[in-house]
Amino acid sequence: MSLAKANMVVAHGGGPTAVINASLQGVIEEALKYPQIDNILGARFGIEGLLNERFIDLRAQPQNIIEKLQYIPASVLGSCRKKLTYEDFPRVLDILKVYGIRYFFYNGGNDSMDTCNKISKLAVDSGYDLNVIGIPKTIDNDLVNTDHCPGYGSAARYVAVSMMELACDIESLPIHICVAEIMGRNAGWLTAAACLAARDNKGPHLIYLPERPLILPDFLNDVKEMYDMHGGVLVVVSEGLKDEKGQHIADSGFTDGFGHKVPGGVSQYLSNQIIQHLGIRSRNEKPGLLGRSSITHQSKIDRKEAKMVGAFAVKSAVEGESGYMVSLRRISNDPYECEMGLVSLEKVANFEKTFPKEWINSRGTGISKDFVDYCTPLLGETLPEYLGLEKIYIDKR
Amino acid sequence: MSLAKANMVVAHGGGPTAVINASLQGVIEEALKYPQIDNILGARFGIEGLLNERFIDLRAQPQNIIEKLQYIPASVLGSCRKKLTYEDFPRVLDILKVYGIRYFFYNGGNDSMDTCNKISKLAVDSGYDLNVIGIPKTIDNDLVNTDHCPGYGSAARYVAVSMMELACDIESLPIHICVAEIMGRNAGWLTAAACLAARDNKGPHLIYLPERPLILPDFLNDVKEMYDMHGGVLVVVSEGLKDEKGQHIADSGFTDGFGHKVPGGVSQYLSNQIIQHLGIRSRNEKPGLLGRSSITHQSKIDRKEAKMVGAFAVKSAVEGESGYMVSLRRISNDPYECEMGLVSLEKVANFEKTFPKEWINSRGTGISKDFVDYCTPLLGETLPEYLGLEKIYIDKR
Repeated sequence: MSLAKANMVVAHGGGPTAVINASLQGVIEEALKYPQIDNILGARFGIEGLLNERFIDLRAQPQNIIEKLQYIPASVLGSCRKKLTYEDFPRVLDILKVYGIRYFFYNGGNDSMDTCNKISKLAVDSGYDLNVIGIPKTIDNDLVNTDHCPGYGSAARYVAVSMMELACDIESLPIHICVAEIMGRNAGWLTAAACLAARDNKGPHLIYLPERPLILPDFLNDVKEMYDMHGGVLVVVSEGLKDEKGQHIADSGFTDGFGHKVPGGVSQYLSNQIIQHLGIRSRNEKPGLLGRSSITHQSKIDRKEAKMVGAFAVKSAVEGESGYMVSLRRISNDPYECEMGLVSLEKVANFEKTFPKEWINSRGTGISKDFVDYCTPLLGETLPEYLGLEKIYIDKR
Repeated sequence: MSLAKANMVVAHGGGPTAVINASLQGVIEEALKYPQIDNILGARFGIEGLLNERFIDLRAQPQNIIEKLQYIPASVLGSCRKKLTYEDFPRVLDILKVYGIRYFFYNGGNDSMDTCNKISKLAVDSGYDLNVIGIPKTIDNDLVNTDHCPGYGSAARYVAVSMMELACDIESLPIHICVAEIMGRNAGWLTAAACLAARDNKGPHLIYLPERPLILPDFLNDVKEMYDMHGGVLVVVSEGLKDEKGQHIADSGFTDGFGHKVPGGVSQYLSNQIIQHLGIRSRNEKPGLLGRSSITHQSKIDRKEAKMVGAFAVKSAVEGESGYMVSLRRISNDPYECEMGLVSLEKVANFEKTFPKEWINSRGTGISKDFVDYCTPLLGETLPEYLGLEKIYIDKR
């Protein structure tokens, strides 16, 4: 890389998280340090913004906006789900040249790292001088070759705190089963975070991840057993639950405009099964996207790391690195410490890290202490502890 | 009421709120001031705790627990949905006498005020000296003869903030319609709070309350129009939406153990309709009980008022009042000021205050400024403002 002035572009891919804008802040603040970086471009709506030449001037942003990015939900740049195809390559190369882009940063998950990898290879194959670094981000925590993914800690905190609050509600009016559905199509990392909410006999009482097939009769037995024990029962399920044949537990019964089966709400389906087969009142909750957009539940450590990986990506690119994703390596758990490194995009793109089966109990209804140790530091501040009354009873006077 | 020592009991009825324990704190702290109050009993699980003689000694609670009650979600006493019947009366009277209870406080909504009223009348009819005061509470905000209900402000804040965050998510990845479902079977107060989330062109774009029948073709037209304009669309609907015939929009297709039709998720139903009829990607979110149990989104003013109404109930009872519910009267909106008073239980029990139709726009898809003015002070602290980037675009160099 020459020291001549060059432009850079940053873009967001896939679903937003509570800290993707924190990574953007890290990127911008770091980029502003280097005289060799001229224009700082933010592509609107991911790779589509690059293809459509929709670039926001990030250097021109007021300081107060840059400083507050870390507290803004979703993606201020906009994101997309487009997968880059070979037909797009000539246009990508053309745009990079026309805009004098020499640094390219893509902040996203598996699919985005694939896009990032393709662009990296495209530049190499075309002999175009471009430094490409991927910035990890996903609430699913399913990127390989990194201890965890920025965005996960905040979403996990959301799950832990809101399931703790929900468990209090269920315990205080124990008239029904409640099935709560958490995002995560293939990986159960986020749903597993519900186990951090459990206190004493309060729920969650049962947790089901997509890594294990759900067997309906077993599920109903487990629910019935917990109901007989506690009255109110909190069951937490992943949206991606599948049966023994690998089919999604619930589909809506029709297809979308693209001919794909539309999955139905698994929590509503299971709740209905409980009512129908056990004759017990049941309801379902599905916070869905609220869990990834909550700034209120943002994890401090997640926010900090998100900024760090953004900054590290820029630093690495300026130092001449290319074709890598920033990864996190846990050095110590107590006190919690992570260091950053680089991992080849080739080793990340399109791979998926599912939840370790050995961290699921034998019945498939609970999560082990190993996961609690793994996840706890990622949630940032200590979780709230909701005290109850001392159970001192009064007799007739 | 004689000055002889007498016992009191407090109980919770119906669904918990984020501040019902704050009211309990107000009750206990006030009761501790009066030498004429001896034992302070908390009935476990509402009126059922009274019938089953399950009383917690609230005077014996450590100070640190009493102080923190205002920050504890759900109901630490436990609640119930039991409606008191005439068959229960002899037992109620018997328990009141055996435990020397002379003060009775029931903290709840419409049904609970009915229970409260029945007990008040029972005492009068039986010549039993009992001071009965109802303490208002409901996230539905549907009690009559009070400006608003403790519990509503916090739940409304949850809706406003989380819909604001969700709107950011939808705007940043505008690939689908999102239908969010908010609690409220018959009254749209809570769903209406979503309008406080709207900023610029961000959602919520459409809000539907149960006070107006939902006409499906109109709904689909409205959604399509918004989709053509914005891409990502946030639609907020009340769980209680009904069609022109007064039937719930969605039912699950079967009945529960009591023979009642089980309502299905209206958001999932409408989301499926969008996919099926408009061919547009759509998803649905249903935070449900999370919205009433969130301490994180607790409104400061709601918490303060909840404590106040609890304390005022005790003070009123000790001063000899009986057969009333504590009500709130708004004296001024800016600065916001409310005063407390008493309203006859007879005028509250079993009545329901629905959302004013004149605060719904003519199309039935939005809420008027009058409601914004009404609701804003109840949310406590100013809502977060989520800045976006300045849309300064960069051209080719």
